[in-house]
Amino acid sequence: MRKIKLVVAYDGTNYCGWQVQPNGESIQKVLQNAIEDLVGHDIMLTGASRTDSGVHALGQVAVFDTDKMIVAEQFAMAINQRLPRDIVVQESVEVAMDFHPRYCDSRKTYEYQILNRRKRLPNQRFYSHFVPQQLDLELMKEAADFLCGKHDFRNFCSLKTDVESTERTIFSVDIHKQDDLITVRITGDGFLYNMVRIIIGSLLKVGTGKKLPISIKESLENKERLVAGPTAPAKGLTLIGIEYL
Amino acid sequence: MRKIKLVVAYDGTNYCGWQVQPNGESIQKVLQNAIEDLVGHDIMLTGASRTDSGVHALGQVAVFDTDKMIVAEQFAMAINQRLPRDIVVQESVEVAMDFHPRYCDSRKTYEYQILNRRKRLPNQRFYSHFVPQQLDLELMKEAADFLCGKHDFRNFCSLKTDVESTERTIFSVDIHKQDDLITVRITGDGFLYNMVRIIIGSLLKVGTGKKLPISIKESLENKERLVAGPTAPAKGLTLIGIEYL
Repeated sequence: MRKIKLVVAYDGTNYCGWQVQPNGESIQKVLQNAIEDLVGHDIMLTGASRTDSGVHALGQVAVFDTDKMIVAEQFAMAINQRLPRDIVVQESVEVAMDFHPRYCDSRKTYEYQILNRRKRLPNQRFYSHFVPQQLDLELMKEAADFLCGKHDFRNFCSLKTDVESTERTIFSVDIHKQDDLITVRITGDGFLYNMVRIIIGSLLKVGTGKKLPISIKESLENKERLVAGPTAPAKGLTLIGIEYL
Repeated sequence: MRKIKLVVAYDGTNYCGWQVQPNGESIQKVLQNAIEDLVGHDIMLTGASRTDSGVHALGQVAVFDTDKMIVAEQFAMAINQRLPRDIVVQESVEVAMDFHPRYCDSRKTYEYQILNRRKRLPNQRFYSHFVPQQLDLELMKEAADFLCGKHDFRNFCSLKTDVESTERTIFSVDIHKQDDLITVRITGDGFLYNMVRIIIGSLLKVGTGKKLPISIKESLENKERLVAGPTAPAKGLTLIGIEYL
């Protein structure tokens, strides 16, 4: 038996998310079917991140076990031949049998795109959050700096979150603008449910002048459960990649 | 009666092109219906460029006459409320009654996007032409320089072309690369049918080493009808804008 690790890119627009759901087609299911068709036996496909409906990926990581004798690097091409065009395996490698995409230490990077102009752009409608108000990037960067480091992010996750610890470390939050497109790139050792989207919602409150940058620090320090900001739409979010340590 | 000029952006993926066709929905028709619904009378909508199925626009120009009393600048918002999300009017202004988007002198700018990497990217599948082979950008730039100036582009248009003169002036061809995405930006006083896409097809022959840069010059000078290269796919093409002189 071998364990194959895939790096997968997808357009999340037409899916109910990574994970199998009662209604709607999931990326996990479509990918699993393609792999089973190739290897000729049932598999268990385990993903690193359970991305929500509408969230995209450039570098989702997923693993499965197989005894199929194919050169590991050639799984990518063979699986892609069985996939629709909105899911594309970027690479495939063999990994140690004890590798687990969720429990092994890693650094995850997400990007969030904000389209900041007066009118919507049709080609961006599934890949960015449209914000027509003027945004103060300097204030947003000031606010973002408070997020870096090890903090209790209890106020930056969905109320549905049910985990032992809400402590996470964010290594960097970079905000840059090219033409009308603002990209927020966040790297951390892990993210709570909806954490990136609530961070973006909070940064937008700062960018539009509705909150001060210091409010981010206050939310991090507040022990009461008071979500820091609204959850920004899923479509602006892309899982860029996962680096295993 | 007033003449209103619109600047229109659209995602051409789900349309049969700008112009009304027997089968499939056209951008012109959808836009015309939205305007008629707003102004309450039939209109004639005239576009500057008859973009093909799958071709996108950021700055298509279209005009119509109306006696509806709305501030010219507010047509954009009012029309957008009646449009699907893949067509968005960017601006509306009143112009002189003798303005014609096709017959008035103009400079048109198109961009063509080439995704140059080993694997496809799902989010780019409708907006760029995927080329996995290595491309020599320096050779492509050398070839592109031959296109600039006033030339007979008879060998850079579809055989279906039926116009009086095939002479056109290209002011600039800029090629730049960011990450895996190559953008070719072409500005000219007008373009023949499929001209940009055949230019791109020819430049790709040069980039992959199948033709020499000088072959572009030879095609321009050849009086025999011999199309210079294949027609690159529509989806990589975007009409960026039209400047009236």
